[in-house]
Amino acid sequence: MLPTIQWKKDRVVMIDQRKLPEKEVYVECQDYIQVAEAIEKMIIRGAPAIGVAAAFGVALGFLKMRKGKDVEEEFSRIVQRLERTRPTARNLFWALERMKITFEKNKAIDLSQLKKRLIKEAMEIEAEDVETNKKIGFLGKGLLKDGDSVLTHCNAGALATAAYGTALGIIVAAFKEGKRIHVYADETRPLLQGARLTCWELDKENVPVTLITDNMAGHLMQKGVISKVIVGADRIARNGDTANKIGTYTVAVLAKEHRLPFYVAAPTQTIDLSLAIGSEIPIEQRSALEVREFGGRCVTIPHVEVENPAFDVSPASYISAIITEKGICRPPYEKSLKDLFNKTQREE
Amino acid sequence: MLPTIQWKKDRVVMIDQRKLPEKEVYVECQDYIQVAEAIEKMIIRGAPAIGVAAAFGVALGFLKMRKGKDVEEEFSRIVQRLERTRPTARNLFWALERMKITFEKNKAIDLSQLKKRLIKEAMEIEAEDVETNKKIGFLGKGLLKDGDSVLTHCNAGALATAAYGTALGIIVAAFKEGKRIHVYADETRPLLQGARLTCWELDKENVPVTLITDNMAGHLMQKGVISKVIVGADRIARNGDTANKIGTYTVAVLAKEHRLPFYVAAPTQTIDLSLAIGSEIPIEQRSALEVREFGGRCVTIPHVEVENPAFDVSPASYISAIITEKGICRPPYEKSLKDLFNKTQREE
Repeated sequence: MLPTIQWKKDRVVMIDQRKLPEKEVYVECQDYIQVAEAIEKMIIRGAPAIGVAAAFGVALGFLKMRKGKDVEEEFSRIVQRLERTRPTARNLFWALERMKITFEKNKAIDLSQLKKRLIKEAMEIEAEDVETNKKIGFLGKGLLKDGDSVLTHCNAGALATAAYGTALGIIVAAFKEGKRIHVYADETRPLLQGARLTCWELDKENVPVTLITDNMAGHLMQKGVISKVIVGADRIARNGDTANKIGTYTVAVLAKEHRLPFYVAAPTQTIDLSLAIGSEIPIEQRSALEVREFGGRCVTIPHVEVENPAFDVSPASYISAIITEKGICRPPYEKSLKDLFNKTQREE
Repeated sequence: MLPTIQWKKDRVVMIDQRKLPEKEVYVECQDYIQVAEAIEKMIIRGAPAIGVAAAFGVALGFLKMRKGKDVEEEFSRIVQRLERTRPTARNLFWALERMKITFEKNKAIDLSQLKKRLIKEAMEIEAEDVETNKKIGFLGKGLLKDGDSVLTHCNAGALATAAYGTALGIIVAAFKEGKRIHVYADETRPLLQGARLTCWELDKENVPVTLITDNMAGHLMQKGVISKVIVGADRIARNGDTANKIGTYTVAVLAKEHRLPFYVAAPTQTIDLSLAIGSEIPIEQRSALEVREFGGRCVTIPHVEVENPAFDVSPASYISAIITEKGICRPPYEKSLKDLFNKTQREE
């Protein structure tokens, strides 16, 4: 599998996810503004991948800082630009926070050493994400059994992370153990991450996949075709309410109606203990053109009013389990998520 | 409003609904095979409009019948070809049945008179559909109140019928009475009848409309933005189970979860008393290309497996009322639908 994002000769290189699967094009970011724009334009997307990109962006921005600038001021400017890219994914702010801590701890040292330290930290964030996803796959694969038909929404695969993926990581891990798993992939309008990215990734892993439009999942559940649902997450509140790609809430309602397990897979970075409930999660509104157009062509009356929320929130009561690298949380999440962090702190 | 379909100088003329709203192109059918293909290719779609097209197809086929043919054999051939076009919409079979009855009643008369009689019958079916939809709008508009935000799925408007529409007919009738109604239109993948046709129609009627992708309806209901749902129907079983465009069942589940009224609007022709329950309704499977492609361009891996059911079934228990031209039916539908037909028979 191709890497989603790489630090390469003092540049940040990422596969252009807008062009997949038609073309495999790589974008080279020369400075942090290009990284910020790549996140905004969704050249790179998926909460963990956005986190890695933000960390690389900080390291790149600081590396290329012009001489004579105030170091602290310049660092803040870079972080603030990256913070403004996309509001929902917790991992973005988590990664920037880690870069800030590294900066604060090391700012007294020699400037060139500090630059190296920030690059090292960003690379560690990337490497940790790989390990995290392997653990999510290892822990989560036990939830799937031979013969399962698993619905997923959007793309929570290798492309959404540094590697392996969260929801797809679990599916692929179960499949590689020899379990016969069939995936149903929601195409995920408006940007079709399911059709473009999830089908492409699963096909490369030889996992059988059937593509459906978002409005077919209910019908297939009614017919008894789907046995489980696994999705990723962009931000999880303290009580377990989970923001993920628009349409996930509808899938959660359908899963509840048909009494199917609805699993969320995400690293602990995605959990935001500062927010009590899901309604506090900021939801990004994106351009009306994404809904009005398809491949650059208008598919409706050009002046029609549009809603385009990029995410929705699935209440904790709809979620059967949250699978993290530290363990599988079950309701009530207020307690199980807290225990996860306490456990983490004890281990460190 | 432009007519959906017209009998014009011994040809059947219809607006090409695949090209709307980008282009207003008319297709002229010279024979019944062209009418059948227009139904199959969805140049014309919507259960009542398909019924009218099938009736016109029979009249056209019989009119252009070559000399020396066996009249009964030829009539059967025409009807059978049209029956094979699309399996789900009840109105197709209802209209063909009416044409068969007219043929049987009149087959002893002079051939040129019989041809005229069939054309007259088809035109009556069209004219009756216009009246039926006016009545549905008149009866249904009382269900909407000032300030309602109404979600609709697919297109049950003038284009889906001879004129006025069913679900949209109700909305427009309520709006013209001075009620402030805001419509949320599901784009309705894969063929985008909501984005292309519903937005276009409502805009022409000056009804405020917001376009959303199919996976946003749940989020908007959760936010309290939507107050009611109205959809059309392709076939209604004796117990009230209703087949309609794929995705309608998901909307029904969402409406139930959010305790919103979920209304079905359809002429009595759409009701199929020969079927006890919805699972007996044949569901058309369409080409995988409709899901894989968009505007002729592949949006996924070209060989991906696809499901493409064109319809799904919303169980009667999810439906708040079925609005017909003969009255508004409430649960239990087994009784209320039957009463409707008994009433109809008494009136005739």
